[in-house]
Amino acid sequence: MDDWLFTMVMPLALLEKSIDKRISLLLKDNRVLEGKLKGYDDYMNMVLEETEERTPDQERRLGTVVLRGNNVVSITAL
Amino acid sequence: MDDWLFTMVMPLALLEKSIDKRISLLLKDNRVLEGKLKGYDDYMNMVLEETEERTPDQERRLGTVVLRGNNVVSITAL
Amino acid sequence: MDDWLFTMVMPLALLEKSIDKRISLLLKDNRVLEGKLKGYDDYMNMVLEETEERTPDQERRLGTVVLRGNNVVSITAL
Amino acid sequence: MDDWLFTMVMPLALLEKSIDKRISLLLKDNRVLEGKLKGYDDYMNMVLEETEERTPDQERRLGTVVLRGNNVVSITAL
Amino acid sequence: MDDWLFTMVMPLALLEKSIDKRISLLLKDNRVLEGKLKGYDDYMNMVLEETEERTPDQERRLGTVVLRGNNVVSITAL
Amino acid sequence: MDDWLFTMVMPLALLEKSIDKRISLLLKDNRVLEGKLKGYDDYMNMVLEETEERTPDQERRLGTVVLRGNNVVSITAL
Amino acid sequence: MDDWLFTMVMPLALLEKSIDKRISLLLKDNRVLEGKLKGYDDYMNMVLEETEERTPDQERRLGTVVLRGNNVVSITAL
Repeated sequence: MDDWLFTMVMPLALLEKSIDKRISLLLKDNRVLEGKLKGYDDYMNMVLEETEERTPDQERRLGTVVLRGNNVVSITAL
Repeated sequence: MDDWLFTMVMPLALLEKSIDKRISLLLKDNRVLEGKLKGYDDYMNMVLEETEERTPDQERRLGTVVLRGNNVVSITAL
Repeated sequence: MDDWLFTMVMPLALLEKSIDKRISLLLKDNRVLEGKLKGYDDYMNMVLEETEERTPDQERRLGTVVLRGNNVVSITAL
Repeated sequence: MDDWLFTMVMPLALLEKSIDKRISLLLKDNRVLEGKLKGYDDYMNMVLEETEERTPDQERRLGTVVLRGNNVVSITAL
Repeated sequence: MDDWLFTMVMPLALLEKSIDKRISLLLKDNRVLEGKLKGYDDYMNMVLEETEERTPDQERRLGTVVLRGNNVVSITAL
Repeated sequence: MDDWLFTMVMPLALLEKSIDKRISLLLKDNRVLEGKLKGYDDYMNMVLEETEERTPDQERRLGTVVLRGNNVVSITAL
Repeated sequence: MDDWLFTMVMPLALLEKSIDKRISLLLKDNRVLEGKLKGYDDYMNMVLEETEERTPDQERRLGTVVLRGNNVVSITAL
């Protein structure tokens, strides 16, 4: 087993470490959602709690949300 | 088995818990549908009853609707 | 087996129940087709008879039509 | 075996019945092609003969054409 | 075995018959390429030789080109 | 085994060699992200640390980011 | 085995023959990249070295680049 394996951080492993922490999601339609990550699956579908949508114009509380992974561009740990 | 497993909420599990409850769907074309979730499959195709479509301009009653999962951006519990 | 299983309506099961009934299809390009559902497959490709296309501008009779499932946004029982 | 099975018309079965008959195809880019269906495969790729492309502006003869199924919105029996 | 099987022309079979012949490709971005078909695979990726790109504005010689099948709308025998 | 095999650099192998090095990502929406590559999976989902987003207008620090591979156009070693 | 098999040039075989040679790539967003092909995989993800991006406005040196195959429209041998 090569050395680099020990330093790799797999994408799904980072999601696992983010469970119950707040993350920010950028969607393909440029919307940004922030919420507490409660779960995800292999397709990067995600469950967020206490979700807020932030656009330049407004901020909306969405509560508990299921997000389809194929609409997600990037996930940022807050 | 790690501790985090007990706190995970899988996306499909949240849909299961939402059966017979009202949810709001955001579609890729920015339309918003509200209805009672009657069923879903592994592709997140969904069956809604008493569905209403809400746009800034109008509100339409659609009755029973099948939605293709690949057009869904997010699902919000109401 | 959980209770919820008895109340679930799977998306393809709703299509099965709609065989020989009129449905309305919303396509990704915003066109609306109405017709009698004659069949479908696992990809939600569908066969409609006595199909009519309705746009704000016009109404066209299309007869028997095969629709590709990946262009369908939602299916409404009429 | 349920009764409805006898009344189902599967999408590919309708294509099979249309072999050597003229059909009209609507493509995702809104172009309309008419031609005699000579064959198809499981992805709804199709072979048309004596194909004509019809746009509001013009009518072009294309002869024998292979069409990729993932660009097809709907197929109408003529 | 049904009669229609003998008259079917499968899409890949038509490509096979077009090897070493000139074809015209319409791409999703509306560009048109003409060239001699040298090969293809199951995804309809293709190899063209002596390829020319034709737009209303210009005609460019491209030589040998690999084309990704998922960008192809239709293939016309010349 | 052919000679060319020894000179091939597989795409995922280049990512492996870039672990813990800074890379630049071009996304489909034309945004450019720079960060230290910490991991990736077979779908080219990636984990970046000390990520910065650069647009003509601004430069933003994003910290640790998971990127969905299907939004990535190209990856450049810095 | 049919005669035509001997004259077929499979798309991936042409890439193999282009290893260590300069190629030009047209991407879906209309950008053109030129570089020396160092490797590829079955999805036509590619590794280019000494890569240059050419637009009507500018020419940029990008060095070593990994390109996602699903953004590639065509590959031209230079």
